[in-house]
Amino acid sequence: MELYAPIAADLRAVEEVFDREILSDVAFVNELCERVRSYRGKMLRPALLLLTGQACGKLTPQHRVLAAVVEMVHMATLVHDDVLDVADERRRQPTINATEGNVSAVLLGDYLISHAFHLCSSLDSQRASRLVGQTTNIVCEGELMQNRLRGRLDMTEAQYFDVIRRKTAALTATACELGAAFADAAPPCVQAMRKFGDCAGTAFQIVDDLLDLVGAQEEVGKTLGRDLDLCKPTLPIIHALATATPDAQQALHRLLQVPCEPEHARAVAHHARVREMLDRCGSLEYAWAYARRLVNEAVHCLAGLPVGPARTSLTRMAEFVLQRSY
Amino acid sequence: MELYAPIAADLRAVEEVFDREILSDVAFVNELCERVRSYRGKMLRPALLLLTGQACGKLTPQHRVLAAVVEMVHMATLVHDDVLDVADERRRQPTINATEGNVSAVLLGDYLISHAFHLCSSLDSQRASRLVGQTTNIVCEGELMQNRLRGRLDMTEAQYFDVIRRKTAALTATACELGAAFADAAPPCVQAMRKFGDCAGTAFQIVDDLLDLVGAQEEVGKTLGRDLDLCKPTLPIIHALATATPDAQQALHRLLQVPCEPEHARAVAHHARVREMLDRCGSLEYAWAYARRLVNEAVHCLAGLPVGPARTSLTRMAEFVLQRSY
Repeated sequence: MELYAPIAADLRAVEEVFDREILSDVAFVNELCERVRSYRGKMLRPALLLLTGQACGKLTPQHRVLAAVVEMVHMATLVHDDVLDVADERRRQPTINATEGNVSAVLLGDYLISHAFHLCSSLDSQRASRLVGQTTNIVCEGELMQNRLRGRLDMTEAQYFDVIRRKTAALTATACELGAAFADAAPPCVQAMRKFGDCAGTAFQIVDDLLDLVGAQEEVGKTLGRDLDLCKPTLPIIHALATATPDAQQALHRLLQVPCEPEHARAVAHHARVREMLDRCGSLEYAWAYARRLVNEAVHCLAGLPVGPARTSLTRMAEFVLQRSY
Repeated sequence: MELYAPIAADLRAVEEVFDREILSDVAFVNELCERVRSYRGKMLRPALLLLTGQACGKLTPQHRVLAAVVEMVHMATLVHDDVLDVADERRRQPTINATEGNVSAVLLGDYLISHAFHLCSSLDSQRASRLVGQTTNIVCEGELMQNRLRGRLDMTEAQYFDVIRRKTAALTATACELGAAFADAAPPCVQAMRKFGDCAGTAFQIVDDLLDLVGAQEEVGKTLGRDLDLCKPTLPIIHALATATPDAQQALHRLLQVPCEPEHARAVAHHARVREMLDRCGSLEYAWAYARRLVNEAVHCLAGLPVGPARTSLTRMAEFVLQRSY
């Protein structure tokens, strides 16, 4: 991607750091890790970390290490998420749990999180370790809250944002904070970069949830409609349940309470009906508009940065959140 | 326990550090953590860390933090192990997965491991973070290997020891190494303490596996016979399969390949027959003798320490491994 052009060489170095870190002296563990490599898609978080570093004035070898750390944390959450969501496809490939079973997938996630912290501890100072540890604490809370709120059709918008800020935006915010902090940016700039990552990450998750409802399976490359199957209310659903006419609310309630076997014909028809209702209530547009506002807020946070290719890439990455179809 | 008398006050301080660290601003996360507290039984690893520190000359506030860290790592592995082993009882209480489901248990384990690293990063130097990260890498490899070797009746003794050294002894060895290192002990003493923890931890796991075969459920306080149900070969089984007469080997093979529903009458009778055969082959005694040799080796590692209550406690803790029935 041309957005990554300013950091292309560094990103390749990050992949090397990543691969070297998870190398094991146990042969079949390496085979499992090989599978994880195929999960590695957009490298969004490492790119954010490197671009914020570069936009703030410099990239150091520490940035490369930290970029590998945030990607490793992200990979660990993907591997565990797929177990918890009983998902069988990710990036057009079968998930680890689908082919190796839940036990291997849980342990592989543990292995990745352990290596993320181990890699982070190779740096001279504890600064990054503290921030990363604090971030993963929050990510876990977000995941626990999300699980707790499953099937709760009375979930509020505030609860929804509390969950996604923790489970998704906390890590993108930290990636951007680390990029700026390790470029020795001034504290207000570090805080602006953190806010950029928070807004962009929150918008990203809103869109991710939208794609689960309205995306095309072959483009997104993972099982869709999982949120409905798992009774996870997302922003459009919460909006519709709060604003639709009483009749429409009742009908939606009934639809959402029917558990479906994923990918059955009935589930497909069922998802289509939910989508139709959300569209009619203006709830899909409401969620898109929310994401647009957050992207604008994110771009606004970049105002203090010097104009240049790194800042341009950050701007376009934030904007891309709204255009992505995968 | 009087063994812990030399460090009783510190151990209480460790509990406070532990509880403070896992405190969340999310109410129900604290309810889950409350459950984890009831898992906290023998505090073996914190006790080893504190006693080695004291035996090497001093205990610092860092020891208390590190003792909480190793206990938190241990708790995380227990919570995940119970999911992977489909265990429903631990310390005479229902497991987290039994009452809260697998999703909560996986996430709670993640939460604990994240907090363990976060707590560790509060120390001034990276020394402990590096060692703890390296240790959890190895623990995860041990767990992955164990899972890979499930049902493999051709597992060798070398493979068995490779697994238990990683999954169990690595953490006890690290606890003892940290105790000595943070008391500023000389490198040979730090290495001797590490070896003490390695030998004692390995013996502990051999006995743990023996108790799964021959223990009394009401004393051990967790579901027994799980290794047989899950087709995990342990030392007595490996010994019997390698040394028994061909007829006995065949009979044992047949017994071990029948999967049983745990706690069914058939499983109980089945476990009793396996036990009987292992006894006849001298395989139970072989495993006990192995553990005894390791305990002697562990005690030998303490020879260089000054005589005193901490050293006495360490000696007796190692010896206790052989007497424990829970």
